[in-house]
Formats: sequence, C-alpha cells, structure tokens
Amino acid sequence: MNKILETIYNRTSYRGKYSSEPVPRAHLEEIMKAGLSAPSGCNKQTTSLIAVDDPDIMKKLHEVIQPPVCETAPCMICVLTQKIYAYRDKCFNVQDYSAAIENMLLAAVSLGYQSCWIEGHITDEDKIGRKMADILGVPEDYDLVCFLPIGKAEEELKKAKKKDFWERAWFNGYGKN
Amino acid sequence: MNKILETIYNRTSYRGKYSSEPVPRAHLEEIMKAGLSAPSGCNKQTTSLIAVDDPDIMKKLHEVIQPPVCETAPCMICVLTQKIYAYRDKCFNVQDYSAAIENMLLAAVSLGYQSCWIEGHITDEDKIGRKMADILGVPEDYDLVCFLPIGKAEEELKKAKKKDFWERAWFNGYGKN
Repeated sequence: MNKILETIYNRTSYRGKYSSEPVPRAHLEEIMKAGLSAPSGCNKQTTSLIAVDDPDIMKKLHEVIQPPVCETAPCMICVLTQKIYAYRDKCFNVQDYSAAIENMLLAAVSLGYQSCWIEGHITDEDKIGRKMADILGVPEDYDLVCFLPIGKAEEELKKAKKKDFWERAWFNGYGKN
Repeated sequence: MNKILETIYNRTSYRGKYSSEPVPRAHLEEIMKAGLSAPSGCNKQTTSLIAVDDPDIMKKLHEVIQPPVCETAPCMICVLTQKIYAYRDKCFNVQDYSAAIENMLLAAVSLGYQSCWIEGHITDEDKIGRKMADILGVPEDYDLVCFLPIGKAEEELKKAKKKDFWERAWFNGYGKN
C-alpha cells in the first residue's frame, strides 16, 4: 500500500493529552500550505488560516473555549471562511474549508503530529468562534469555524468505529456489490 | 518533502481528455475506502459512494449530465449524502462529504489517476444529481451531490492560479506574518 493511502486509512481524531514539545514554524507552514492547496469551488479560495503558537495567545483562546478541549496542544490552526459567491446564489465555502481541513489533518499526521477537527464546539449558539476571532483581530466578514490543535500525542490513538465498507460503498447502483 | 505533502501540493483538478484504459475494481475500492476513512461530525458517517464502471450505465449517466463534462473518463465515483443530525439542529453532512471527496482525490492521484470535483454542475436548479440518482436506484433520502471522474490523463495537467500564501495564512493574528 502506498504512503498516501496508509496515511488516509490510519488518520484518526485525537482528543488525548499532547506533548508540550513546540511545533517548528516550518511545519506549521507546511500544514497550512497543504490546507491552501485544496481545491475551492470556482477557485474562489474562500478559506484563510491563522496558526497560533504564542503561549499567551493560546492561553487567551483557551479561556473562551468552554468546556475545554485539547488544551494541552502547544499550538493550533484556526480556520476562517468567507461567504464568497461562486456564481449566482451558489457559495461553496463549507466545501472549501472542509477540503482544506482534511488536507491539514493528513499533512499534520505525515509530519508526526496529531490533531482533531473541532468545529461544532465553537460554532454553537454561544459563538465561541467569534470570541476567538476577536482575540485574533479577525474582521467581521470572516467566520472562524474550526480549530485544529497541533502537537505530538502522549496517549494511544483510538480509531472511531465505522460501519462496514459495503454498507456505504457500492458498484453500478445503490446497494449493489 | 514527504510523499503526502508532495501529493497534496501537486494535486490539481483535471478537466481534459481521459484515456479509455479501464480502472481495476481494486483501485476503485481503495479510492472509496479512502473516502470513507474521512472523519465525520459526531461520527455520523453521512456519506455513501457508488462507483460506476459499467459502460452502459456510464452512457446513461452522461446523457443527463448536460453540458457534458469529463465524459471520456472510463468510470466515476458518485457521492451520496444524507442529512443526518449530529445533535439538535446541527448537521455536518456537507463537511463530511467534502472531507471524503478530498481524500478520494488524493487517493486517486496516489494511484496514478486524475479526477475533478464536479458538484455545482449537478446540484443546480435542473437537478442533474437527482436524474443520476434515479438511474442508479438511489432512494429519495439521499442526495447525489458530486461525481468524480476517474481515469488516466491524456493531456497535460494545469494548476489553478492561487493567491500568494501570505495573503491567506498568518501567525498569531489576522494579517500577521
């Protein structure tokens, strides 16, 4: 099996304790570059990113992220999105940032780190994402929809249990194997 | 640079002519397995897939895909989604299928194929996605939102022109490098 398939199959969402070992800027840049290499609807490039590795800013961000999640990671990448219309009333910004996030999760794993897609936690009615955006000076026309903790895992990885392959994948027609 | 980053950075959307060389089932299964390995909000696994490699069914599908796009590819993977609530009114099915698609694009490239994320073309008011779903016997509670042509490229790859990295990626605050 090639390295790409192996990474894709083995990646998992990591919510355990992270090592305090810092992540070099060069690695954060590689991960962000991976995110921005994702395709976007009509090439509108609706996704932007802010990596945070300043301990004081990390602390401020985690003060508003309640209940706490992945607070031991030494850094994070915050995902910003803009509702830019691709054409007429069509806007693909959710698709765009999701593809970018998946690329970043894979890139992080390829460099020896773990991460977790944390979205619902900060886009709920208590608008934690906007509080984080305010700390980072993000203008109102962007939404901060997700953050990815980045760091080395100190605990064992656990794979999410999934349905059998043939319950969700078919050939030449619905339900056909 | 590692193989994963290299694949992520170099992947591009291919809309040119495809070779008629068939794609082995084992490869289509690997690509679909990559798609289904993507994370999903609250592990709801809202994405399902149908690979089509039967020439008669390919012909029927391309009859409803108007204007034609990537019609020379020997096969395709159709992406189905279900609006399953993760919790309360929260549904992450767009995020789920987008992450699955990105995984499949990377997996396809890793196996020597090219592809293209074709979504807006079939989810417009003329509801081509529903016509495709009917050909494939897909129940009404699924939406067919995207198809990925899969095959070998016969023309040169072209990379989409993108904004400079530092226009969309920052450290520790909006616009900060």
